[in-house]
Amino acid sequence: MDPFMKAAYKEALTGLEEGGVPIGSVLVHKGRIIGRGRNRRIQQGSPILHGEMDAYTAAGRLPASVYRECVLYTTLSPCMMCTGATLLFKVPKVVIGEEVNFVGGSDLLREHGVEVTVLDEPELIAMMRKFIEENPTLWNEDIAE
Amino acid sequence: MDPFMKAAYKEALTGLEEGGVPIGSVLVHKGRIIGRGRNRRIQQGSPILHGEMDAYTAAGRLPASVYRECVLYTTLSPCMMCTGATLLFKVPKVVIGEEVNFVGGSDLLREHGVEVTVLDEPELIAMMRKFIEENPTLWNEDIAE
Repeated sequence: MDPFMKAAYKEALTGLEEGGVPIGSVLVHKGRIIGRGRNRRIQQGSPILHGEMDAYTAAGRLPASVYRECVLYTTLSPCMMCTGATLLFKVPKVVIGEEVNFVGGSDLLREHGVEVTVLDEPELIAMMRKFIEENPTLWNEDIAE
Repeated sequence: MDPFMKAAYKEALTGLEEGGVPIGSVLVHKGRIIGRGRNRRIQQGSPILHGEMDAYTAAGRLPASVYRECVLYTTLSPCMMCTGATLLFKVPKVVIGEEVNFVGGSDLLREHGVEVTVLDEPELIAMMRKFIEENPTLWNEDIAE
């Protein structure tokens, strides 16, 4: 697995151990991880703390010029909120671990010129499928269904 | 001014007193405010804490059925991140205080069937205009420009 996606996966696994939704993300600037995050909606009781949002938070306040050189790695297709944040920050590249279990805003990202790569990693697909099967209510809450 | 927009305005003024970006929001469910928020990017050092995100956070984890009956009031046109969050939660109505100083994702909201009302309140327009004129760097950071 790509090393940055592996780092996002590791965040997802930490989330799972904490009793959270196993989605992890890392923000990469010039080959270096500057923000790591995982979905902590359950852990922090926050509806906005998806993995991507947590990674953006961890990276802190950045100049626009830094965002423009970043790549966001996330284990699952980003929902509309995380898609919107990525468009706000104008991050030009997003690498998605899988979008078999959920398809978020990847088309909207592409429409705005973001380069989107979907890896569909078997390990990530299996992890998320198992979580959704075992926790349908928690998962549905995550996507407000 | 509409009482809910007035509550959002009060949040914006509190933010201004704290040295923050004066944008406030309230989430209203069946005529009752269930979440109040203001842009706290500067106060909390968080790039994702726009007024709307802060209000969604304050409202806590809600069932999808509650979001479907909510109205979001926000003093300024919501950026793409806050637009995306509103689409994720499927909040059906958004009331925008003004979009003279900034136009965010109101068209995207409408495309997704959200009922959008723009008030263009003179007090809100004046407050934001003054802030942007006096703090161009802080404002540009808020919209990653």
